[in-house]
Amino acid sequence: HFEDMVPGHRLDGERHTIDRDELVAFARVWDPLPFHVDERAGVAAFGSLTAPGLYMLAVKQRLIHRLPRQAVIASLGYDEVRFHRPLRPGDTVFLRTEWVERRPSGSRPDRGVVTLRFSLINQADEVVLSHLDTILVRRREAAG
Amino acid sequence: HFEDMVPGHRLDGERHTIDRDELVAFARVWDPLPFHVDERAGVAAFGSLTAPGLYMLAVKQRLIHRLPRQAVIASLGYDEVRFHRPLRPGDTVFLRTEWVERRPSGSRPDRGVVTLRFSLINQADEVVLSHLDTILVRRREAAG
Repeated sequence: HFEDMVPGHRLDGERHTIDRDELVAFARVWDPLPFHVDERAGVAAFGSLTAPGLYMLAVKQRLIHRLPRQAVIASLGYDEVRFHRPLRPGDTVFLRTEWVERRPSGSRPDRGVVTLRFSLINQADEVVLSHLDTILVRRREAAG
Repeated sequence: HFEDMVPGHRLDGERHTIDRDELVAFARVWDPLPFHVDERAGVAAFGSLTAPGLYMLAVKQRLIHRLPRQAVIASLGYDEVRFHRPLRPGDTVFLRTEWVERRPSGSRPDRGVVTLRFSLINQADEVVLSHLDTILVRRREAAG
């Protein structure tokens, strides 16, 4: 709930290893660039196959569902989406959630607007993806 | 190429109809919220099933591959990602690309940095998704 999302706090989720076959199957459908789907092209360009940015966002979304259940109503939008480094098959990542800012809704006392930063962090402790997400969240108790 | 991406110009791509089964299968894997995967929950919340924001981004990425081939090297990041309206099964959308800004690379004369805006527009001419994308692009001829 809104009340629990304290700016400055953060939460690290569980680890998840990137599966080569899933990555390639995903890329074939949604972003079939050679270095996402063909081992040889990936090695030539980046030293290995690399994940589409969209796949990084998908992994992030999946890992959100492994966090404690949240009273999120909707995402209003993402800002500062950055693909910092390649994500590769076999990488082990976790999701870091940091609460950045919050304010009660002006029009609806039962909800608030929260900005948080998601980061996907690999086994070398490098951020591979980060972005801000501004979400609409239920308040535990409607303000009077 | 960089030279062809003239700020102020835009390009509308071909139309694409959202397939209910694909949407639900995608949501089951990546963002299994009830109103993305369950007809009844979707109707109760939004009048129909609605697509995850991630699926909107995936459709956009797929439609990029139907544009004329581009000399894009990489995306540096997205800004101002906005989910303006629900995307629903049966909607017919197209991708609008607008070139916003460009500059030659400071360090590499064979490439430039281009900012463009992607919009996914539905059959009622409403924008459902939009974002800025800043990309690294090859130049046709290396500057001297």
